[in-house]
This record gives sequence, C-alpha cells and structure tokens, in this order.
Amino acid sequence: MARFELRLDADAVNALMAKAFPEADAAALGAVTALSPGRATLVRPFATHMLRPGRLVSGPTLMSMADSAAYALILAHIGEQLMAVTSQLTMNFLRGAKAGDITAEAELLHLGRRSAVCDVRLWTEAPDRLAAQAGVTYALPLS
Amino acid sequence: MARFELRLDADAVNALMAKAFPEADAAALGAVTALSPGRATLVRPFATHMLRPGRLVSGPTLMSMADSAAYALILAHIGEQLMAVTSQLTMNFLRGAKAGDITAEAELLHLGRRSAVCDVRLWTEAPDRLAAQAGVTYALPLS
Amino acid sequence: MARFELRLDADAVNALMAKAFPEADAAALGAVTALSPGRATLVRPFATHMLRPGRLVSGPTLMSMADSAAYALILAHIGEQLMAVTSQLTMNFLRGAKAGDITAEAELLHLGRRSAVCDVRLWTEAPDRLAAQAGVTYALPLS
Amino acid sequence: MARFELRLDADAVNALMAKAFPEADAAALGAVTALSPGRATLVRPFATHMLRPGRLVSGPTLMSMADSAAYALILAHIGEQLMAVTSQLTMNFLRGAKAGDITAEAELLHLGRRSAVCDVRLWTEAPDRLAAQAGVTYALPLS
Repeated sequence: MARFELRLDADAVNALMAKAFPEADAAALGAVTALSPGRATLVRPFATHMLRPGRLVSGPTLMSMADSAAYALILAHIGEQLMAVTSQLTMNFLRGAKAGDITAEAELLHLGRRSAVCDVRLWTEAPDRLAAQAGVTYALPLS
Repeated sequence: MARFELRLDADAVNALMAKAFPEADAAALGAVTALSPGRATLVRPFATHMLRPGRLVSGPTLMSMADSAAYALILAHIGEQLMAVTSQLTMNFLRGAKAGDITAEAELLHLGRRSAVCDVRLWTEAPDRLAAQAGVTYALPLS
Repeated sequence: MARFELRLDADAVNALMAKAFPEADAAALGAVTALSPGRATLVRPFATHMLRPGRLVSGPTLMSMADSAAYALILAHIGEQLMAVTSQLTMNFLRGAKAGDITAEAELLHLGRRSAVCDVRLWTEAPDRLAAQAGVTYALPLS
Repeated sequence: MARFELRLDADAVNALMAKAFPEADAAALGAVTALSPGRATLVRPFATHMLRPGRLVSGPTLMSMADSAAYALILAHIGEQLMAVTSQLTMNFLRGAKAGDITAEAELLHLGRRSAVCDVRLWTEAPDRLAAQAGVTYALPLS
C-alpha cells in the first residue's frame, strides 16, 4: 500500500542476483516472475534435494528462499548496491510444504536510509495454504 | 487470501473483549471497526498517556494494540474461548508513530488446532505510512 | 562472554532513564540493581495495575520491562546518547508470570556502530522459572 | 539455570539425528560435543560449500545449524520422539561469520507439554565474537 518506486525491472534484478551468487546453480536462486512497486513474486523450481524426510520441503530451503525474495525485492528498489546484508529473519512455519515449486511473495513494509523490512509469504500448494511467513530485515549500505 | 470462516461478528467480539478485560477502560482496548473472514481492523482513540517524550506513541502502547488486534481477530474465528494466550510477539518498529488514533489491521495467516498466527500492521497517519508491523502467535486451548 | 566496556555505572544509568522518561512514575521504570560489562539486572516493584485477569502480570508490562532493560544496558555501554530507539522486539512468553516484583536480566549480544542486540530474560518467581525471553534490537544514533 | 533433566546422552542424540536425516551427509548435520541439563554444544566441520561470496559462512547454513542445534537439545530432553517440528525461528545476524568450523551453543529456555523454546548462539571465530543468535520454537507431539 505504501508509495515505493522501482529502480530496476525483473530482468535486471534476476541478472543482479546471478552476479551476486556466481557459484549458485541459477535454478537454486529462484527468479523474479512479477514485480511492482513494493511487491515481488519469486518462483524456485522444485528439486528433490529440497526435501527432508516426510517428503516435505525442508525448513532451511524455505528460509533461504525467504531471504532471497527479500533481497531481490530490496535490490529492485535501491538499485545496483550488492552490499545489503540480512540483519534479522523471523520465520513462522505454518504447515508442512508439500513437494513442488516454491512461490514467495515479498512485500516491502519500510525502506529507510539504513534498513529495509519485508514481509514474505511462501507456499508450494496454493496461496491460501501458506507454508510459511517471514519477516526479513536488511541493513543497507550507507550511501 | 486463505479460506477462513467467522464465528462472531464485530459487536460480539467487542463484547467479548470487554468481558475479558473488565478492569480496562473500554477506550483503551480499542474496538473492532471492520471484520471479514481472515481480517479485522481495530481503532484505539488517541489519549495523551500513550505518548512518550518526542510526542510519539510509545512502543508498549503499539505492542499492546498489536496483541489486542490479534486476540480480537482470533476470537472472531474460534468463538467464545477466552483461554487463548499469546505465545510469541515480534514487533518491527518502522517509523515514529505521530500522535493520533491508532489503527491496527490484523490478518490471519494460519489457524490450526493448537495455535494461530497473525500479521498486524499499525499506523496513526495513513496506511501507506506504517508505524509498526507485528507477527503474533497465540496458543489455543485444546478442545 | 563478549568483551564489552561500561561507560556509566548503575546510578548514572538510573538517573539517565529518569531524565529520558520525566513523566513516568519512577517506580514504573524499574531500576538497575546490578551492572557489569555486557550485563545488567533491573527490578520493577510489583503494582496491581500490572495484572491482567487471572492475576498474572500482563504481556504489555513484560514487553515494556524487556524494552527498558535493553535500553538501560545499552546506555551503560554507549554513554549519554538518548537517541537510541527500539527497532525490533521479539518476545517469547514462556509461562504465566505470577504477581510479584519483575526481574529482568539483559545481556548484550552485539554492539555495533549502527545497532545493538540484547537478550533479556524475565521472571517474577525465580530465575529458573522464566516468564519470558526477549530479543531486542536498538538502532543507534550515527555519531 | 532452569531445572531440566536429560533423557539421552550425546551419543544417543547423535545417533537419533543421523536416523532422522538418513540422506544427509553426517558431517553436514554437526555433532553434539557437549551436553548437560538444559544445554548442548554442537560443532559442524567447515566445508567450502558453506560459503557465500565474500568468504563468509552463508545465512542459510547458520540458520540450518541453529535449527539442528535446537532439535538435538530438545531430543536430549524428550527422548526418542522424532516428530518435533520447528514452528518458529528468529535469527539475528550479528557479524560476518569467517570461514571455519561452526559452533552452536543451545540453551533450553522452556520445555512445556506442547512446545519447547531454545536460545542458540553461533560462532566460527570465538564465543565472544558471536556470528548470530537464534530463538527457536519447536512444537512437540502430544503424548
């Protein structure tokens, strides 16, 4: 709802993410599939190594996805400044995440000079069956 | 977005809150002003004792409001079970809250048999100038 | 365990807190009763207005105490800079807090140039019967 | 400080962890190296895949370690009940974690019938240079 302004489009953010994590399998990062002021959607294709026993997507996979989604959303609004670092991540696990592509919807709650705070919702089944919700805070480089 | 079902209307929730906190000044609790499946809006009228130095609404006032808003929203969905208790509250303070009535918008992220998780956004100026965001978890009575 | 250095003693911190919150009832703030590098203990005398139904100390009272304890501990290490503001507070409610004086033990986990992070444990009965635990982050004034 | 009672020793916990995550590289899980009522220390040997650009241990690696440490500590106190699941994890990133073995010290704050709450401190350099601190809540199987 807040008034935010994009500095990068989805392609530019995806290129920046790939540059920031050169060693990562591109697929492992997920990609921005939708982007608007204050909001981004990312999708990470399913891979069997994401699973923990019980055939559910593991907690670390979901936390990593929440973190990347917040990072992508913040980059889209601050531009090419790779030095933003996560300072806090709070994850609520809401229900077991069944095997499948992971979607993350990230919303910017606040973008200040020193930090940015995002809300991230994650699911594999459907948006009305959330697997997890995260609050993610990034410390921003002082410019 | 999730499929939730209301068991109480706004008047019933307000009556239940007043019953749960008989000693509280009714105004101090705030009142449900809008209610739909999965969502509630509460408003607490401004009072000078809410302020801390700098004429900003104090952190404890905002945390208390976040907690009441989550409680009201959960009661609306589980009905008259006063035994729900807060197990976790994570508050992100986003900007100073200028003196004014406090609005809280609470959204139900998950309602399980044992716990409920809510997202709460708070402001005094305007919804696109959030003062704070909270994640609130309640433990539910085993029925 | 970390190497921290005090800049103020307990009396100086208590005087600073009273100055920061001139309108507050002195007793309501609690007082630093022990202080060493990286650690502070505060005690707030019991008062009936702290109770919620069930004769337990209310959540907002405990959250407010956690916040003050972190603030006092940080002031003791950064000196007379009243501009530190809470940016995040995560509270785990562990058991009902029976009526009684509230003790808070705050530990400094990190003191950086831009922020400080504290762990706070709270109880009314005994230190091995914690009522709550909080993680509190303060944003520090850039000096 | 609380009065907790161990049901398993370190070897039994390590065996149980290996059984719970049969597909994981044993080293990736880390091992309990010290265990006493209410406290456990785990160490995970360094591996290059833990690093992110800048030669710092990645956030997901640290979050995963915090989660395993809490799980191991809880198992040690509840015995062979593999169904405990993480319900909440709050991670404070305090400083960059230099390449090295990761040590996690987990402390049990509360063990109830329905949930357990742990505090976890993580470092690679030295215990007085914490890389991160986590609060981890597990939901326990109703027995």
